[in-house]
Amino acid sequence: MAIRILITGGTFDKEYDELAGSLYFKDTHIHEMLRLGRCRLEVAVRTVMMVDSLEMTEADRQTILANCRQAPEDRIVITHGTDTMVETARVIAAGETGKTIVLTGAMVPYAFGSSDGLFNLGSALSFAQVLSPGVYVAMNGMCIAARRARKNKALGVFEEMPG
Amino acid sequence: MAIRILITGGTFDKEYDELAGSLYFKDTHIHEMLRLGRCRLEVAVRTVMMVDSLEMTEADRQTILANCRQAPEDRIVITHGTDTMVETARVIAAGETGKTIVLTGAMVPYAFGSSDGLFNLGSALSFAQVLSPGVYVAMNGMCIAARRARKNKALGVFEEMPG
Amino acid sequence: MAIRILITGGTFDKEYDELAGSLYFKDTHIHEMLRLGRCRLEVAVRTVMMVDSLEMTEADRQTILANCRQAPEDRIVITHGTDTMVETARVIAAGETGKTIVLTGAMVPYAFGSSDGLFNLGSALSFAQVLSPGVYVAMNGMCIAARRARKNKALGVFEEMPG
Amino acid sequence: MAIRILITGGTFDKEYDELAGSLYFKDTHIHEMLRLGRCRLEVAVRTVMMVDSLEMTEADRQTILANCRQAPEDRIVITHGTDTMVETARVIAAGETGKTIVLTGAMVPYAFGSSDGLFNLGSALSFAQVLSPGVYVAMNGMCIAARRARKNKALGVFEEMPG
Repeated sequence: MAIRILITGGTFDKEYDELAGSLYFKDTHIHEMLRLGRCRLEVAVRTVMMVDSLEMTEADRQTILANCRQAPEDRIVITHGTDTMVETARVIAAGETGKTIVLTGAMVPYAFGSSDGLFNLGSALSFAQVLSPGVYVAMNGMCIAARRARKNKALGVFEEMPG
Repeated sequence: MAIRILITGGTFDKEYDELAGSLYFKDTHIHEMLRLGRCRLEVAVRTVMMVDSLEMTEADRQTILANCRQAPEDRIVITHGTDTMVETARVIAAGETGKTIVLTGAMVPYAFGSSDGLFNLGSALSFAQVLSPGVYVAMNGMCIAARRARKNKALGVFEEMPG
Repeated sequence: MAIRILITGGTFDKEYDELAGSLYFKDTHIHEMLRLGRCRLEVAVRTVMMVDSLEMTEADRQTILANCRQAPEDRIVITHGTDTMVETARVIAAGETGKTIVLTGAMVPYAFGSSDGLFNLGSALSFAQVLSPGVYVAMNGMCIAARRARKNKALGVFEEMPG
Repeated sequence: MAIRILITGGTFDKEYDELAGSLYFKDTHIHEMLRLGRCRLEVAVRTVMMVDSLEMTEADRQTILANCRQAPEDRIVITHGTDTMVETARVIAAGETGKTIVLTGAMVPYAFGSSDGLFNLGSALSFAQVLSPGVYVAMNGMCIAARRARKNKALGVFEEMPG
């Protein structure tokens, strides 16, 4: 079963720039993470963009949706900043691709020792293999349908809204 | 949805003893790992034993099966050494508990920087939430039914046998 | 031989704030670092301030100098942001305390996996034990007298100026 | 000032063999550690042997001594297993090379997250630059003359004997 992984940036892939003393994007860490997880799934990785999700535009979201449509795979994992992950999930859901699409990210950059990134990636790849078509957010060990997901910014966690 | 986590030892939880210069078991790292993964699932952890899976006896496997039966939860994740993970999975499958039970472990101790443990834990907890009743091995990003799983000891990976 | 450690902030002690997605100061990591280094020196730690060295004022530097003077110990290590470490070193040198004072820091926060902080701390504590009175910068494995030290901001390293 | 680094093995350079589930030697981590420490010293690294110091023979110690003599540098750091570090230090001291030689090691392999290796390396390289000729053990942040050093095996630390 082949899985497409689309990289869009977010905290997941932030690095520390030791000259500037700030966080920035260089390359995705996904390949190192898949190697660390000894992942043997057939995956195809594509870096669609490398942006902070607070700066993601509607055009960016349409680009991500187009990438979901064009991918030959029916199962897709998207790494994404957490701040607007739910918004992007809803745009993709509205696109009705008929595919199983799981968005995930990290609260702490993977390059930090204490990141949740590896846990979330293992989780997202697993949900993507077994869930029926739909768009989901996989964070905090849970999987929440796009229309019911919400980021609680005060707590830094994702929640499922009733209904 | 509540998940029971049963700890049995294995590489997952090996520590480095700096006085003896060898690997040993102290406490499970599962709580730290759940914290790192910002896991918000309702989990109940029970340390059943702390053994190297090469030293696990048939009586030990029956103890693990009994713990699966007695747990009030219908969804169970078991951390286990990889060397005999498949054997234990088959003993539990033969026990026909009617529950969804996922075994996982690690090729490298969690206490090492390069462990696959966090990835595997995220994966196992995810499969445990959505798979129908049965006994599975979750390693290398995959989920394999107990009766078809095999550890390839030369490569250090798990494979699905045909049939 | 007792050593005083004065904490002033800098990259060394920056943390990742997962709610804000930015770097900030919480507590110093010095105690954890001394524990990791199995350090058996008699040290007394004092957090003087927790600031980014680009924001350090002349009054802050006088406070650090006063702390050097007041400390009962004759050997002092100061953790400091790298951007203005040399400026502070010169203010302390001008203060003519008659003590052996070694400033050090880190290019990457200790909380990141790839930090130089632990190496630099081991280095600074060692130089502080054996050098004669004076003010020094210990970075990049080297020890440079305050009056001859310079940060090469393009390369992110410290250099010894001739003369 | 050029420093020779001689690698002899020890816990410092132990790796985890994920197929065998045990610790072993592959390559030295010294180059990665010097890079992490942003070390700008002029160093020449030579791997003399890769052995557990409990298995080091008298012939091995003579080989290390010969390497100290033959090195063009007058300042030498030796990475060594902690169990017999003091014995090797005394053999080298008896060799009267007239050089400044500092032995160091680690209680926990560098490949583990919680190693003291980087701290000790920073310390040893610093002492090696400034101490007068002699043979020393640099561990626990301290530097002890070979003839007065002792490993307290119950505590896993090095001590200075009176006299």
